[in-house]
Amino acid sequence: MVSGEQYFLSVSRSEGESVPEQASSPVGLHRVLEPAGASLPQAARRLDNRAQIWPDEVRVSVETLNLDAASYRQLAEKHTGPDGRLDGETLRAEVLDIVATRGKMQNPVTGSGGMLIGTVEEVGPQSPLGLRPGDHVATLVSLSLTPLEITDGLQRWDGRSERVPAQGHAILFGRSIAAVLPEDLSPELALMVMDVCGAPALVARVVREYTARPDRGAPPTVVVLGGAGKSGSLALAAAGDSGAGRRIAVVPVEREADLLEGTGLADEVVIADARSPLGLPEAVAAAGGPADITVVCVDVPGCEQPAILSTAQGGTIIFFSMATSFAAAALGAEGVAADVRMLVGNGYVPGHAAYALELVRENAGVRGLFEGRLDAEHTRTP
Amino acid sequence: MVSGEQYFLSVSRSEGESVPEQASSPVGLHRVLEPAGASLPQAARRLDNRAQIWPDEVRVSVETLNLDAASYRQLAEKHTGPDGRLDGETLRAEVLDIVATRGKMQNPVTGSGGMLIGTVEEVGPQSPLGLRPGDHVATLVSLSLTPLEITDGLQRWDGRSERVPAQGHAILFGRSIAAVLPEDLSPELALMVMDVCGAPALVARVVREYTARPDRGAPPTVVVLGGAGKSGSLALAAAGDSGAGRRIAVVPVEREADLLEGTGLADEVVIADARSPLGLPEAVAAAGGPADITVVCVDVPGCEQPAILSTAQGGTIIFFSMATSFAAAALGAEGVAADVRMLVGNGYVPGHAAYALELVRENAGVRGLFEGRLDAEHTRTP
Repeated sequence: MVSGEQYFLSVSRSEGESVPEQASSPVGLHRVLEPAGASLPQAARRLDNRAQIWPDEVRVSVETLNLDAASYRQLAEKHTGPDGRLDGETLRAEVLDIVATRGKMQNPVTGSGGMLIGTVEEVGPQSPLGLRPGDHVATLVSLSLTPLEITDGLQRWDGRSERVPAQGHAILFGRSIAAVLPEDLSPELALMVMDVCGAPALVARVVREYTARPDRGAPPTVVVLGGAGKSGSLALAAAGDSGAGRRIAVVPVEREADLLEGTGLADEVVIADARSPLGLPEAVAAAGGPADITVVCVDVPGCEQPAILSTAQGGTIIFFSMATSFAAAALGAEGVAADVRMLVGNGYVPGHAAYALELVRENAGVRGLFEGRLDAEHTRTP
Repeated sequence: MVSGEQYFLSVSRSEGESVPEQASSPVGLHRVLEPAGASLPQAARRLDNRAQIWPDEVRVSVETLNLDAASYRQLAEKHTGPDGRLDGETLRAEVLDIVATRGKMQNPVTGSGGMLIGTVEEVGPQSPLGLRPGDHVATLVSLSLTPLEITDGLQRWDGRSERVPAQGHAILFGRSIAAVLPEDLSPELALMVMDVCGAPALVARVVREYTARPDRGAPPTVVVLGGAGKSGSLALAAAGDSGAGRRIAVVPVEREADLLEGTGLADEVVIADARSPLGLPEAVAAAGGPADITVVCVDVPGCEQPAILSTAQGGTIIFFSMATSFAAAALGAEGVAADVRMLVGNGYVPGHAAYALELVRENAGVRGLFEGRLDAEHTRTP
């Protein structure tokens, strides 16, 4: 067996250019410092975050980091005292320490990262990303695999919000994903939309595949668990946009049902516990189910079997929740003889960011939900 | 919100029949004793294992239990002393205790069960399973959700094998799965095949869907990780049977490559570490990859990203390994901008048992592998 390392190394030197010694890899293997040569950037303990770029890389000047919700929650809990007070200073110090130690912002407990906004500073001559210096971009690959250096000590951040004003630089590989921020939407809104843009793109694809099947008559009934959330509301909008029939939103509480009221995103809004293998199928059935396509956007464990039991034989379930248990899904379907197709919600679908932004532009209902969420965050964070 | 309980309760009393008071549920909710009314049989701590059946149930007289590999391994490790000797007596006692306490054979540590062979004793008038008294059957739903009572103290079992001769009874619900054992194959062979019959059925379906797509030219290249194993070899046979193009088997060691030699199951057999994000894609590429369809049958953690990097853009990955991490798959694909469809390997596809048995009958290569495995087991177990 030949060592795999050569496979990823594109030989890409230009005469007279001052590039690092090792050739680059489109997935960033050349930036992995620990463990050396045996890991992808996401699994690595430490990345090479130097500013100098390889020929297929892009350097971005950082403006804002957006820590992912699970990571920030873990940090906030850790730095909240018995009196319930969050110590923003020590939280900030820990984030600085993580980035200094690992060369990337990857929470060591949750393993997750987040995304960032910045301005393109330098584009390598062989970068396939289509970016130009000066482009205002958001990175759509996780911070957990993005080389990052912070130079301002995060002095403009009080540690009390997932949104972190920051100075420094980040590196994009050949096979990274970044999207130019639109000029007609605020960066905050665009970022919030792009953070969950995999969901609407995949839902639209699955709905279109369904309606294209020769053996299908009526448009599919789509049930979205967590329909009032970010990915859930975009999933509903995408379902409507791509030809779904009845759309049923499931939410846990009255307050979330009220959010969807009048948005036109769903034909039925149902209040039910998505973890209830008895209650959920009954509630979905009462609203016109079972589902032909069930979309799980509820970030709590235990929704696998309820989703399976709410889905018709021959139907599809898309799991977007990171709380999904693979074994619970696989065994759960087998245990009740459910012939359902279950998809791991891949956050990458070509064109996903543009599609999600288009939905927000064109669908006043989903746009209103996102803007309301932004307002609420601004109110919450002094 | 109306309570969900009514949804599953089919009102199904026959005049004059002595049935239990509560109506039955096709997924067995009526047999859940703890926690009462809030759980499916698999998640339940304790099931009602009484012999009397509801009108849609079937009672099977048990002949053999087949503990699943993960469960038996855990039990064997627990009951092996520091001298490396397995105490079969205490292992047997623990299995008896589990069944007596829980009303089902579900390993409390692994959560897994296994399957059983037996003879149909009584069929309720409303059972949809199509079984008749006297049928020699294997249950294809997990023992972890099957009401079970053992009456012989497992006296014919020495605790040293996953295969447990047993007397007692088991209950099948309306929506259980059981297959009549074929007369032309030994029960041991049939059971071993049916234990993994979800894999070939789903692989065949995915290959057929692929070849039916209007935008596809050549038949798909199928890569099976763990190609010499039970589900892996059946997956290879199914791929060939359903119109795959190039078939590449990946195995970890020379000995497994030798097993596939001359079977005709694969066009290429590659020895590589399926956990290597660098080595696996390189090895698959050298053998004619990347894959259009990758089938993961390797029961070790960490194969998600290597599988993703071995699959072409637009391709499909089917994860059959219970060691699959949902998050590693979802984030792994996003992290390298991989537009791949990732399926949770659902163990149930209608007709799966019959299809797998047909493959074994018609494909001498895969049959030879299974028979060799049976011989090896018989040699190992005195």
